[in-house]
Amino acid sequence: MRSADLDAVVIYSTDPHFSEYPAARWKQVEWLCGFSGEAGDLAITLDDAGLWTDSRYFIQAERQLAGTGVSLHKSRIPGAQSIEDWLLKEIGEGARVGVDSLCTSIACFRALEENFELAGIPDLLSPLWEDRPAIPQSPVYSINPGESREEKLDWLRAILADKSCDYILLSELDQIAWLLNIRASDIEYNPLLISYLLVGQEDAKLYVLKDEYDDSLSEYSFEMLQSEGVEVLPYEEVSLELLSLEGAKLWIDDSSLNAELYSTIHCEIYTAPSPIPERKAVKNPLEIENIKEAHIRDGAAMENFLYWLENKILSGEKISEWDAACKLGEFRSQIEDYVEDSFETISAYGPSAALPHYHTPSCDAPLLEPRGLYLNDSGGQFSSGTTDITRTIPLGECSPEQRREYTLVLKAHIDLAAAIFPVGTPGCRIDAAARLPLWKHRLDFGHGTGHGVGYFLGVHEGPAQIRQNLGAAPLRKGMVSSIEPGIYREGLFGIRHENLYLVEDAGSSEFGDFLSFEALTMCHFDTSILELDLFEDWEIDWLNSYHQRVLDNVGPLLGEAELEWLKRKTAPVSKSNNTKNND
Amino acid sequence: MRSADLDAVVIYSTDPHFSEYPAARWKQVEWLCGFSGEAGDLAITLDDAGLWTDSRYFIQAERQLAGTGVSLHKSRIPGAQSIEDWLLKEIGEGARVGVDSLCTSIACFRALEENFELAGIPDLLSPLWEDRPAIPQSPVYSINPGESREEKLDWLRAILADKSCDYILLSELDQIAWLLNIRASDIEYNPLLISYLLVGQEDAKLYVLKDEYDDSLSEYSFEMLQSEGVEVLPYEEVSLELLSLEGAKLWIDDSSLNAELYSTIHCEIYTAPSPIPERKAVKNPLEIENIKEAHIRDGAAMENFLYWLENKILSGEKISEWDAACKLGEFRSQIEDYVEDSFETISAYGPSAALPHYHTPSCDAPLLEPRGLYLNDSGGQFSSGTTDITRTIPLGECSPEQRREYTLVLKAHIDLAAAIFPVGTPGCRIDAAARLPLWKHRLDFGHGTGHGVGYFLGVHEGPAQIRQNLGAAPLRKGMVSSIEPGIYREGLFGIRHENLYLVEDAGSSEFGDFLSFEALTMCHFDTSILELDLFEDWEIDWLNSYHQRVLDNVGPLLGEAELEWLKRKTAPVSKSNNTKNND
Repeated sequence: MRSADLDAVVIYSTDPHFSEYPAARWKQVEWLCGFSGEAGDLAITLDDAGLWTDSRYFIQAERQLAGTGVSLHKSRIPGAQSIEDWLLKEIGEGARVGVDSLCTSIACFRALEENFELAGIPDLLSPLWEDRPAIPQSPVYSINPGESREEKLDWLRAILADKSCDYILLSELDQIAWLLNIRASDIEYNPLLISYLLVGQEDAKLYVLKDEYDDSLSEYSFEMLQSEGVEVLPYEEVSLELLSLEGAKLWIDDSSLNAELYSTIHCEIYTAPSPIPERKAVKNPLEIENIKEAHIRDGAAMENFLYWLENKILSGEKISEWDAACKLGEFRSQIEDYVEDSFETISAYGPSAALPHYHTPSCDAPLLEPRGLYLNDSGGQFSSGTTDITRTIPLGECSPEQRREYTLVLKAHIDLAAAIFPVGTPGCRIDAAARLPLWKHRLDFGHGTGHGVGYFLGVHEGPAQIRQNLGAAPLRKGMVSSIEPGIYREGLFGIRHENLYLVEDAGSSEFGDFLSFEALTMCHFDTSILELDLFEDWEIDWLNSYHQRVLDNVGPLLGEAELEWLKRKTAPVSKSNNTKNND
Repeated sequence: MRSADLDAVVIYSTDPHFSEYPAARWKQVEWLCGFSGEAGDLAITLDDAGLWTDSRYFIQAERQLAGTGVSLHKSRIPGAQSIEDWLLKEIGEGARVGVDSLCTSIACFRALEENFELAGIPDLLSPLWEDRPAIPQSPVYSINPGESREEKLDWLRAILADKSCDYILLSELDQIAWLLNIRASDIEYNPLLISYLLVGQEDAKLYVLKDEYDDSLSEYSFEMLQSEGVEVLPYEEVSLELLSLEGAKLWIDDSSLNAELYSTIHCEIYTAPSPIPERKAVKNPLEIENIKEAHIRDGAAMENFLYWLENKILSGEKISEWDAACKLGEFRSQIEDYVEDSFETISAYGPSAALPHYHTPSCDAPLLEPRGLYLNDSGGQFSSGTTDITRTIPLGECSPEQRREYTLVLKAHIDLAAAIFPVGTPGCRIDAAARLPLWKHRLDFGHGTGHGVGYFLGVHEGPAQIRQNLGAAPLRKGMVSSIEPGIYREGLFGIRHENLYLVEDAGSSEFGDFLSFEALTMCHFDTSILELDLFEDWEIDWLNSYHQRVLDNVGPLLGEAELEWLKRKTAPVSKSNNTKNND
């Protein structure tokens, strides 16, 4: 910093593409201070340093920062001090601040620029970080999800023409993968290729780390792209191309473009959200067919896992949270088109499950006891779709509180899953369907109720979501969303019941067109600890009918013993035979 | 226009104070073109004229404009052309446009100013409008709603000091009435005094049509105000005062200030929403006590009316919608502290009720038949509070569709009325509680589900409201809101069930503090046509318990026959005795 004449350096916890899971190369905050949470920004002056993170990570940050000299600054709380305010106090207005311009958003760059002289240095840390990991590269392959890249490019070019734009620059990896029907494994849990894409009316240029590719799969994929008019060029040349665009009108989405690329643009700019997320979220008929089948196979893996788990617990074997996560991974990876998990499995027994974002340790993980609740939140990336499921499983005797709240969370899940709503309804308007049954008992949960899910893409996908925050993006026919209410009792237990659903037509009337949810996830909910008196009759009907579908769809994929077991697990329940189904 | 060198004139349907019900003097649009809807703006060029209004008034506007030469322009529809765009086409950029600056909002003024040379002329139409009504004046009186004007002024001055403001200018009449604890009858259905108020740290100046007041009540009220430091000055002097404020910092709310007054301000301006609506909406303990009692007396008037109505219909007497409205007005006006109605009573039989904003004609109003549904939406201004209630009454045999939808709307009402929700929840997040039961049957309604209600002030009061439009203002303890779902079948019938509710504490847990609704309105819902199988048991319990409260509270105010009748009407219902209660 002294040699570069910098009074401060700010490092944001993002990569150049604003990926949900940055690769090791871009875990700069962790490398500098040890904090490994997903959201944390670091500001360093010549004699002090601070980490900014939100309430999800306060405990983790305090533990990981202990002894580092880096102080914790809590963000998104009343009276929180921003990085800008802290720097103003520490180094004063007009001081020189360095940022890694590749990993800084335009918004953050502008916020700092208001008060400081900014030095945007790409790969700022590379000279100091001797064994810095390279940009990941993995084989690139094509998929056929029912719409050709030609159809998609034509669609995009028509929109460009409509806005009188000559080009659009795409830097979000899931948008590029969707548009070109390509996948890779550069990003953990996301089948994506690190790249930029520039689409013009006449041409399309994909910027990848090409010179280092020597696998035949990538070569074949790139040849296919070239033959269909998508030029494949070296990753670092995108800046040069942008510099040369003079006289053109370029569409950028400034919420997902890094400051470095932005600084190289000298042509006319049209700034607007990319049109891709909205279209990508609506799955086409082939994608829907594939997704349904992927969920049946995933459901079979889940049922095999749950059968295995129950027998292990009954036999008194010692299993840790980690063992259980591995076993489920084993079942899932046996599925023909399994590629990888769609996120890190949360395998959490008892108090562990009270943390919605619990990280299961590989060493000395807590053991599962034959009582109380075990929560498992997991999913897979299949070339035919992406899955995400949470089940909370009673491992033996449960307290009345656990039984009651397990039931109420399932009631909340059913109430939203059975909702019918008009076309145009944003998710925030029906979020309450899953909360009203909990609020009635003065219960609530602090996370969103549902997120969009990609087609063999990110397990979290916009634009629609079902949550408390007000947002106008409507749920649309063909979208996939999770429904995942929960209750978390610190130090005691956690409950979450999560399925994925397809948004479907639900008929029309003189009052408009209506939508509903069709269950994609195919795995039973344990009925043994349900307090059925808390259910309305129609909710019980919903559950029985869902269980019949699970049995019909998943049953044929199971072994004999597992099938017999699943028949018992999915046997219809009713208020009068509440206790009959406990086995 | 020619003599004033104007190419066009634009007249907005508002008064200088942006009142919900402008006085006759400011019904300028109606005087010019005959259109009497609440929302309609008129643009006139030398050879053409157009009226802009929204879908609520399309039919009415077409009827009322027929033969006037004024064309209808539909606003708030896709592709709608704004007044500005139309004028650009008709008279071209830079042309001279006149507006009545007293009745033009700052926003409208600015929108026109972008393209035209604007002439803001106060009372533009007065020279043409020979018998133009005067600004209404009525006796001014004080009320004691539990907080003195001194306390309220101290509170406001502390906020002014906090924002380093010397003055705040108030022009919305309900804010002035609330702050000074004064009422009058200048505005229809609203107990308000036409005035401006300028509050400074040391002084407060109320601008009223003072010289013309000669009633002893107003004189006494003004003397009281003067003795408490509120100077009473002539209405038209407010402009002079604003001109003289140089060197001061003045708080204005530019959403409710007219362009004329705005043009006279030359000091430093702080623009922000007034802090009064937020505080005014939260009723104090005395207001709450009074409101509850007002609703019991209002409920007795309603029950007397419903008893009268049932007997008239049974006896076969010919009653029109207008007769029924008058009779209810008679019962209500017998209440000791009745001042006026809080809005124009909607008395609508059969197809009339399918129009949510039906205007009951005084001549040749439709007759009530001994079958089908009659809807009555009405309310009173009492010095102890404001009421607003809708009941839909079966007058004899009803169709299966009517019975079913009558039941579903009541179910929707109960589901929201029984909701419990966390502190901080905006109304738009629980609006769905009243729609989900309807959506399930592909039913819906096109208006808001609930609006705030003032304390002996406007029957529609912000900031919180329960509706589809996303808005962040939370429902807070002490607020009063309506709950009024409905179903409207064009040409056939309309159903709406409306009560007012007080937002109340509903306990706390480790998940936060919760709120609920306590019924203020005290009048039974007819149970004779309920299809109770559509109800959950707890919804029936809610209804029975509400009816017990109605009987306990209103019963003692009724005559012997009416009481016996109400006992039958409020008798508990259950799924097994669904038919027993039809009488």
